[in-house]
Amino acid sequence: MPKTSIKGQKMPESPIRKLVPYAEVAKSKGRKVYHLNIGQPDIRTPEVALEAIRNYNEKLVAYSHSAGIPSYREKLVGYYKKHNIHITKDEIIIGAGASEAILFAMQSCIDPGDEIIIPEPFYANYNGFAVNAGVEVKPISSSIETGFALPPIADFEKAITSKTKAIMICNPGNPTGYLYSQEELETLRDIVKKHDLYLISDEVYREFCYDGRVHYSAMYLKGIEDNVILIDSVSKRYSACGVRIGCMITKNKEVLATAMKFAQARLSPPSFGQVLAEAALETTDDYFEEVKNEYLARRDVVVECVNKIEGAFCPVPKGAFYVVAKLPIDDSDKFCQWLLEDFEYNNETVMLAPATGFYSTKGRGEDEVRISYVLNVDDLKSSIKCLEEALKVYPGRTN
Amino acid sequence: MPKTSIKGQKMPESPIRKLVPYAEVAKSKGRKVYHLNIGQPDIRTPEVALEAIRNYNEKLVAYSHSAGIPSYREKLVGYYKKHNIHITKDEIIIGAGASEAILFAMQSCIDPGDEIIIPEPFYANYNGFAVNAGVEVKPISSSIETGFALPPIADFEKAITSKTKAIMICNPGNPTGYLYSQEELETLRDIVKKHDLYLISDEVYREFCYDGRVHYSAMYLKGIEDNVILIDSVSKRYSACGVRIGCMITKNKEVLATAMKFAQARLSPPSFGQVLAEAALETTDDYFEEVKNEYLARRDVVVECVNKIEGAFCPVPKGAFYVVAKLPIDDSDKFCQWLLEDFEYNNETVMLAPATGFYSTKGRGEDEVRISYVLNVDDLKSSIKCLEEALKVYPGRTN
Repeated sequence: MPKTSIKGQKMPESPIRKLVPYAEVAKSKGRKVYHLNIGQPDIRTPEVALEAIRNYNEKLVAYSHSAGIPSYREKLVGYYKKHNIHITKDEIIIGAGASEAILFAMQSCIDPGDEIIIPEPFYANYNGFAVNAGVEVKPISSSIETGFALPPIADFEKAITSKTKAIMICNPGNPTGYLYSQEELETLRDIVKKHDLYLISDEVYREFCYDGRVHYSAMYLKGIEDNVILIDSVSKRYSACGVRIGCMITKNKEVLATAMKFAQARLSPPSFGQVLAEAALETTDDYFEEVKNEYLARRDVVVECVNKIEGAFCPVPKGAFYVVAKLPIDDSDKFCQWLLEDFEYNNETVMLAPATGFYSTKGRGEDEVRISYVLNVDDLKSSIKCLEEALKVYPGRTN
Repeated sequence: MPKTSIKGQKMPESPIRKLVPYAEVAKSKGRKVYHLNIGQPDIRTPEVALEAIRNYNEKLVAYSHSAGIPSYREKLVGYYKKHNIHITKDEIIIGAGASEAILFAMQSCIDPGDEIIIPEPFYANYNGFAVNAGVEVKPISSSIETGFALPPIADFEKAITSKTKAIMICNPGNPTGYLYSQEELETLRDIVKKHDLYLISDEVYREFCYDGRVHYSAMYLKGIEDNVILIDSVSKRYSACGVRIGCMITKNKEVLATAMKFAQARLSPPSFGQVLAEAALETTDDYFEEVKNEYLARRDVVVECVNKIEGAFCPVPKGAFYVVAKLPIDDSDKFCQWLLEDFEYNNETVMLAPATGFYSTKGRGEDEVRISYVLNVDDLKSSIKCLEEALKVYPGRTN
């Protein structure tokens, strides 16, 4: 039997997937499992978007343009304009989710063996895309004590080598919920400019900023227009993760031309997803208001309840729908597995994502978990109650 | 401005895309262009499949399983059983088109720097996937004189090195329309077994076999079950190229586990495409009969008309909907460009794919073009008439 690839063996397993068999164990014992481990919202997709699918009346589902349906990209120009991002339709390449867009960006900008700097904790699949593209991730650490603010500039300088080609951020952040300020973005601009790096900015949670804060896009930065690559997705914005529609946007014509070759090789992004995404641009502001208020209420519940637990702490996230919480535990992988295998409170338990999967540095995140607030307020309250009770009896409790 | 990747610069441009600006020139001159250059059929998608989309009634479009919706994979098991391919749903990984499935297969089986042998001419995008995966394509030549039959075993033996990890075929073939016989498949089995290679078999045109010939799948081969990876797609089968649904299938559990890590990193294949593809499995035989008869009539027209042209020749393809024709021309790239830029007959012209793009060996295919018979019989007749008239006046005619 021929051997599989070494590259394949290096591909990281998702930190969440590893726990799936244990969730099955909990369910087989008849326990209700609250899923706070996933990025799949329970919010409805806008009706106007679903309606477009039900009204699909083409007779044959043809390939679209490799960069995406022109009318869709044309309307996206309008969407971005509303957010003060000024681009043309030819500066957008639609991908099968942000996933494919990130791959296009990495592959177009960074050669195998070269390096990308990412503040950790970061979205675990960035590791998978990096291995896929042969790119080395060089993490620099942000810390729960500062609420996961941008690490000091000295840390970036220390991490930059001759092989460094890009810095990547997620803003607002998954898993931290941290929203970078204009000042932090400007710090990044200075580093990027000084070392002539790419800045890949994943802004899929743009709409989810709380407490009156305004999102500051990497596309606003002056003087590094050719360095910035914006990553976006409709998955969270319209609660339409399954459509697999995202995009990469850049002013850099060479990057666009290179990414287009990757896009053409795979022919086209999904047609139906684009139909839905185009229609979704008609979604009215009240949808977003409602969704944002819902997430805000959930965030407040999670933050309040977690911080009431003895020995637990979480910062107040300013965006997205995640929070990283520090817990009095020895090992978050063990703890999350134990919650599913051995614990129940009123025949219920909770599934969390161990934060270790979001760090590249070994040993970090062992006393942290990511909580996604993708359940309604009542379920969230019950979930955090579960967590509180669990921490009272967990054998690996540290203080 | 930071440089784009060397890998990106190596990505081949599609041989068809290069001509697109010249087609625009022809259109700007008011000329009708017959598109025989593309793999986009004009056939209707089955009604039962489109109906499933119009009846979509979920309230939120969620991620599907990373390997694809379980009920869809379960039904696919039944589809393959009808074709005497016996698999379980866990041996299928759904991809965003055969494109993604091929990438998963290459990345799971072949490391960057290792080699894959592919008989040429072959589907041009294989080059793109290979560059993407860092894999070296080693072509071995098949010839129009034998109708593009499998090259002799000695040619494979000569091409195999310590870096060779796989052989890839497309059966029936794009661009040749050649259908490998059972004997040819068994020859491949022997080579694969002797050198312990993977055999990646792209069988997306399975349904399109003519003249009573029966498709012989690589999955039928005994004794190399762990070596075979089947690539499939719904694009051509149901004329639904835009849904971006394909799959890889293998009995090799390690390959499956590795490919799943790539699949999980990108979360899931497109949901709507899977909904359509699952419903498409209900398509009745009369749809396929009708489509096959239509393609058959077209093939006969193309083959007859091309072979009547002085100095031109094409073999009779046994499958798919392409034919490679040899023409009395100096340079197929120049000729195809000239057709669009400088030629018209009754204010019409024809867009063909230069065969050079389907060969890896430099210089091959210069007197060959690929003709896709994706237009109706009348348009095909007019197209080939155009071609005939063009060859009478083409300045680069060779005999």
